[in-house]
Amino acid sequence: MSTTALLAIDWGTTSARVYRLDAAGRLLDQRSAPLGISQVQERRYAEALAKLLGDWSCLSVPRLACGMIGSRQGWIEAPYIDCAASLDRLAAGLTRTPGGELIVVPGLITRDGRGIPDLMRGEETQLLGSLTPGDATRLIVLPGTHSKWALVRGDTVLDFATYLTGELYSVLLAHSLLGRLPMVDPASDNSAGDSSSSDEAFERGLQHARCCGPLTHDLFAARTLALTGELQPHEVAAWLSGLLIGREVHDALAWARSHVAGDPVSIVGEPALAARYAQALAGAGAAAQQDPPHAAARGLALIARQVGLLG
Amino acid sequence: MSTTALLAIDWGTTSARVYRLDAAGRLLDQRSAPLGISQVQERRYAEALAKLLGDWSCLSVPRLACGMIGSRQGWIEAPYIDCAASLDRLAAGLTRTPGGELIVVPGLITRDGRGIPDLMRGEETQLLGSLTPGDATRLIVLPGTHSKWALVRGDTVLDFATYLTGELYSVLLAHSLLGRLPMVDPASDNSAGDSSSSDEAFERGLQHARCCGPLTHDLFAARTLALTGELQPHEVAAWLSGLLIGREVHDALAWARSHVAGDPVSIVGEPALAARYAQALAGAGAAAQQDPPHAAARGLALIARQVGLLG
Repeated sequence: MSTTALLAIDWGTTSARVYRLDAAGRLLDQRSAPLGISQVQERRYAEALAKLLGDWSCLSVPRLACGMIGSRQGWIEAPYIDCAASLDRLAAGLTRTPGGELIVVPGLITRDGRGIPDLMRGEETQLLGSLTPGDATRLIVLPGTHSKWALVRGDTVLDFATYLTGELYSVLLAHSLLGRLPMVDPASDNSAGDSSSSDEAFERGLQHARCCGPLTHDLFAARTLALTGELQPHEVAAWLSGLLIGREVHDALAWARSHVAGDPVSIVGEPALAARYAQALAGAGAAAQQDPPHAAARGLALIARQVGLLG
Repeated sequence: MSTTALLAIDWGTTSARVYRLDAAGRLLDQRSAPLGISQVQERRYAEALAKLLGDWSCLSVPRLACGMIGSRQGWIEAPYIDCAASLDRLAAGLTRTPGGELIVVPGLITRDGRGIPDLMRGEETQLLGSLTPGDATRLIVLPGTHSKWALVRGDTVLDFATYLTGELYSVLLAHSLLGRLPMVDPASDNSAGDSSSSDEAFERGLQHARCCGPLTHDLFAARTLALTGELQPHEVAAWLSGLLIGREVHDALAWARSHVAGDPVSIVGEPALAARYAQALAGAGAAAQQDPPHAAARGLALIARQVGLLG
């Protein structure tokens, strides 16, 4: 452990992950715990940090964190930085907890043409970790509960937009009539036959999304197709996933169209979901590449270097 | 009770309502019970009917029912009738329970330009109850958990489309991050100040819907506007209602545009929700009229007369 130079922490709503990095920003080791800010009672964050770090608590190195830990409900609020936000401006917004236990990265705010705000906290650091040098404007997607699409250039996040895709998928399957048929969660589907049937249903959902009817009308088709037998009960989840991801990809590409050329879209996320986004992007005629994991660790290392926390 | 000629039953998923009608189809009395088909164990429908009717069980008159009682999960399946469906064709699809306890009205099925099915069961009878003579094609909306918009002419339902608006509103508020701020349900809001604030938030949601961004992106604004203080926590529900109803009205009017002239849209539903749809329609430049209550009773009387169950 003598080479440790930084503890880089990705501290979100439900879980927290700490990366042990050397002076060159290389990943030495990592630990995670279900200690997201929604899991910490009475703001006992110092205690949660000690639990997350374990024996790494003894290391006398800076601790730099991104994510919801910097929100109003977190340990200390690190106010949002306006877009376009460069690495430099983001680094200037670092906020320290009163006891000096943690340095916290701010989130980003942008406003669309209607003046409506959009927010991110945590993803800005993953975006930094996925930057590539150059003058071209690129499009990056971070799929998830609240998918983020960002336009980046050089070391700057120009603009971004959030889509509620993942959360909508979950709540509809768990709590609406659409989920009230017997179905197999594609993620837990082990039989080859059913898996290929799910893949096909996902593709059918994507195709349906390409026709672009009103979304709340198209959602109801998950029910009617199942009732008429045109969709098997165990295919409903995959079809719905295809519909929602397909629509998100369509809408986000339209949003980004005037800003980016034909460069591949970077996908930052866990492999199974990233593969589905790649499939949706391909269907929409857009090339895609899956970024390597641990973007948050790379982004935190970049910020640490910018402010001299790493040599 | 000597004048009773028909027991007309609107038997849905969560509740059931029976109307006692005279030979002219006039409403004499009504009763309801939380005995919808999701509440009836082991298909004990005969028992549920006896409980719903109470002492009306002794009346020797026909019992005509519409709604989910005619679905596969109901007492007996009354297969869907294709659109366009006239009163005559609907009446020809009546199905009788094996013991003769009940005559059941079929539902309707239609397919859009992409071949995707849409279904209704129960609403077809309310539509019949809202028909007016004449050759003009009219637009009727039945707001609710699954809002239905229908094109009707004379005694025929030409086509219809479902929007998942009400269910989406409920599951997002109850189970997503959008509902995880302190808020006041507008329906239970008694203070004049808060009520006008809710009305304003509903109108802001309507206006936001008129800009027509991607829905899953716009939904996230319910969160960001609350986080930036541009929407008070207790206004989130009303704003979300405005966004979803506004979008539904926009989409449905676009769907119906080529078929209807400027006749007022008929709204069939409970007064508070109908008023919100009227406001959304006005904002979209469309006139609206709220239909009188008990459309299901009127529709069942019409069907009964068509097949000679009423004189």
